[in-house]
Amino acid sequence: MRIAAAQARERFLAARVARLATADASGVPHLVPVTFVCIADRDQDVLAFAVDHKPKSTTRLRRLANIAANPSVCFLVDEYDDDWTRLWWVRADGRARVLDGAMRERALAALRDRYDQYRERVPAGPVVGARVTRWSGWRAADPRAPQQA
Amino acid sequence: MRIAAAQARERFLAARVARLATADASGVPHLVPVTFVCIADRDQDVLAFAVDHKPKSTTRLRRLANIAANPSVCFLVDEYDDDWTRLWWVRADGRARVLDGAMRERALAALRDRYDQYRERVPAGPVVGARVTRWSGWRAADPRAPQQA
Repeated sequence: MRIAAAQARERFLAARVARLATADASGVPHLVPVTFVCIADRDQDVLAFAVDHKPKSTTRLRRLANIAANPSVCFLVDEYDDDWTRLWWVRADGRARVLDGAMRERALAALRDRYDQYRERVPAGPVVGARVTRWSGWRAADPRAPQQA
Repeated sequence: MRIAAAQARERFLAARVARLATADASGVPHLVPVTFVCIADRDQDVLAFAVDHKPKSTTRLRRLANIAANPSVCFLVDEYDDDWTRLWWVRADGRARVLDGAMRERALAALRDRYDQYRERVPAGPVVGARVTRWSGWRAADPRAPQQA
């Protein structure tokens, strides 16, 4: 059954890691896990993450090349359990860009607040922000629970 | 540090769930968790998963519409830990299509072998197979471990 947008957002933001999908200009998708924060900008949610670009590696930079060519991104948080009545996932669709100025500083401050590792070593590379256009989700209907609207 | 293809494949195939990224014809990515099996076809790995298409939902069918428009897919398996020296992820890039005939039957048999739930209820909907074109992965270099080649 669907998870309402507000609930999907809440479950998503409680997670420590999400999976980020980007796609290049020809539509080839690319996946990588990301640690993230959510900051507000003009009443909209922006999911932000830092890209550690050293040591230099084409693999690590592919998400940036993809976002420059095609800003559409998708994030997923899910929990697997061999008991499939406990399955759920939540998703954020958005449009990403490299942040600068005040938005970059706010994202970095939030990342330092959330992850100790970023306090010890402030990310020096690009910080990406994705304006969320849709929160959605799904969970298995628990046959033991009463049906909910 | 990079994980070699053979090791990436091994870690991937030990997982119970992967995240699948597809993209539509205009390159908008879409993410969903999938249970999967790996079957061989002419010495190539094919990652296969079933699509449960009832109850009817446009959300659940989007991965199929995307694959029909754009067969490029990406799968990710990763493990998060607040100790970032333990992080790793492995990825499979491939080209997907809906399986039929003998390949569909082999995939269904493998899914039933691997997941009890599929033994109790055989998937009636489409089965997708993605020919893997690349296995790759990354893990944090453990500063406590000796450097390995």
